[in-house]
Amino acid sequence: MFSALPDSVSICEVSPRDGLQNQPVIVSLDKKLELIDALVASGLRRIEATSFVSPKWIPQLADADALAKALMARAASKTVQFSALCPNEQGVERASRAGVTEIAVFMSATESHTQKNTNRSTAEAFAIFAELVPAAMKRGMRVRAYVSTVWGCPYEGEVKPAVAIAIAKQLIDYGCYQVSLGDTIGVGTPKQTKEIVERAIGEIGAEKLALHLHDTRGTALANALVGLELGVRGFDASVGGMGGCPYAPGAAGNLATEDLVYMLHGMGISTGIDLEKLIVAGRVASRVVESALPGKVHQAGLPRVM
Amino acid sequence: MFSALPDSVSICEVSPRDGLQNQPVIVSLDKKLELIDALVASGLRRIEATSFVSPKWIPQLADADALAKALMARAASKTVQFSALCPNEQGVERASRAGVTEIAVFMSATESHTQKNTNRSTAEAFAIFAELVPAAMKRGMRVRAYVSTVWGCPYEGEVKPAVAIAIAKQLIDYGCYQVSLGDTIGVGTPKQTKEIVERAIGEIGAEKLALHLHDTRGTALANALVGLELGVRGFDASVGGMGGCPYAPGAAGNLATEDLVYMLHGMGISTGIDLEKLIVAGRVASRVVESALPGKVHQAGLPRVM
Repeated sequence: MFSALPDSVSICEVSPRDGLQNQPVIVSLDKKLELIDALVASGLRRIEATSFVSPKWIPQLADADALAKALMARAASKTVQFSALCPNEQGVERASRAGVTEIAVFMSATESHTQKNTNRSTAEAFAIFAELVPAAMKRGMRVRAYVSTVWGCPYEGEVKPAVAIAIAKQLIDYGCYQVSLGDTIGVGTPKQTKEIVERAIGEIGAEKLALHLHDTRGTALANALVGLELGVRGFDASVGGMGGCPYAPGAAGNLATEDLVYMLHGMGISTGIDLEKLIVAGRVASRVVESALPGKVHQAGLPRVM
Repeated sequence: MFSALPDSVSICEVSPRDGLQNQPVIVSLDKKLELIDALVASGLRRIEATSFVSPKWIPQLADADALAKALMARAASKTVQFSALCPNEQGVERASRAGVTEIAVFMSATESHTQKNTNRSTAEAFAIFAELVPAAMKRGMRVRAYVSTVWGCPYEGEVKPAVAIAIAKQLIDYGCYQVSLGDTIGVGTPKQTKEIVERAIGEIGAEKLALHLHDTRGTALANALVGLELGVRGFDASVGGMGGCPYAPGAAGNLATEDLVYMLHGMGISTGIDLEKLIVAGRVASRVVESALPGKVHQAGLPRVM
């Protein structure tokens, strides 16, 4: 155990997008920028900042164009890779106009979830991304991919790892530089994670893989540990554990960035993040969404000798 | 990884003692019995119910005598091992009068914490337990032991595993049937846990070992996973994650029983517990302490196909 841990891990911070879109409040542009500035100050270098979807779908992110423009005008945009989720060509066009240099595309491991979440079939999603990904790359953008519901689907229940990984592989083949496998409804347990990650590493390679774990049932960090031990070096996380699960109202959201970083640093794995400053960002996050957040380390602080 | 997982795990439920003593409210005897009845209904068969300490120290457990008598009069006492923490001979005498058949003794891995927590030195604690443990066994009681601050001490910082395990070994040598190693302030991370558990298994044996993990910094379940993989089959947990940390006010408490059981069952490891009923107990726990509790599964519920 732990004989081949990586020296460093790359974290993609998703609180401004996946976190805020699942919070009940609508946060102002100024407060979003305050949160993102705090995240940047902590040393995070990959931040998914917003989503170019219709404001009708996700009113929390209706200010995507203004937010992206404000971020790209910041000095931090030279050293921090800000990205934005784009469901279609129109989204990519908006991202491009705002000067965003990395986008993310997404689909689900199951037909039902892709259909209900994006109103298209798996085949239609493939047809769209087969064109969209190379087109975005021609514009000079990096493209990342998400596959949702890999650990389980709210409509279909169990998901076959082979099916989920085949979808992930296809998105990589279109040109995405990394695919992030999502436990969207937070049902994963460690043996299942082992099965999924081993297969994904075998078919896609650890260097193109990230895990996007939700803590709905408390298992996110244990699942991250399994991924780490198997060679995964990319993890998505959300400061404060901000987020939620539309299928379990009131439940916890994403893996909390500060808890992940606390564990990694405790294991001697570097992240480039100043944990004290990340704790500050967690408290900023709690303030901007006007509620307590489930992440532990921003509440407890670092251990102190009394 | 996971090549030698146990078929089953034995959980010691500590919410009525370690949970309630760290909650700010004083819960009535009737409500404590309601909580314990819900825990029993879930299938838990080892429940640490109270502590025979001075009410001046822990007013939350001032009803220890009445609670223990009420429990021992219940039919459940035939099938459930109720236990009580006893700091000294007077505590054992009270436990005996109430008919309690299992007690637990405790000390810390560090001199400072033993001194501040129990007002005696490590040497004095050893002298007491060298007599108390065999004496309790002569009364027909089973004796369990805790060693606190194994992962870190609020007064001394880092703790040497060799020192902590030597203390644990001594308590086993006095006659305790099991020693539970405590991450009292919830600072542990997985590599550290591996080092502690490997040493403990080497010197004490996995069959006499339990882990008592706090989730102050979100790592409790990941640390439990490490213990499990190394062969530990005994875990302490508290429904709802009830509890707290006196050194980090407002921080999360013990590992939540329902989250542990969710992970174990998801890995095919049996516990004898009905998770649906344990979720009910978690909600009872939240009601009796009149506050939200951090455990995840009692909030989210089990996954459902919509």
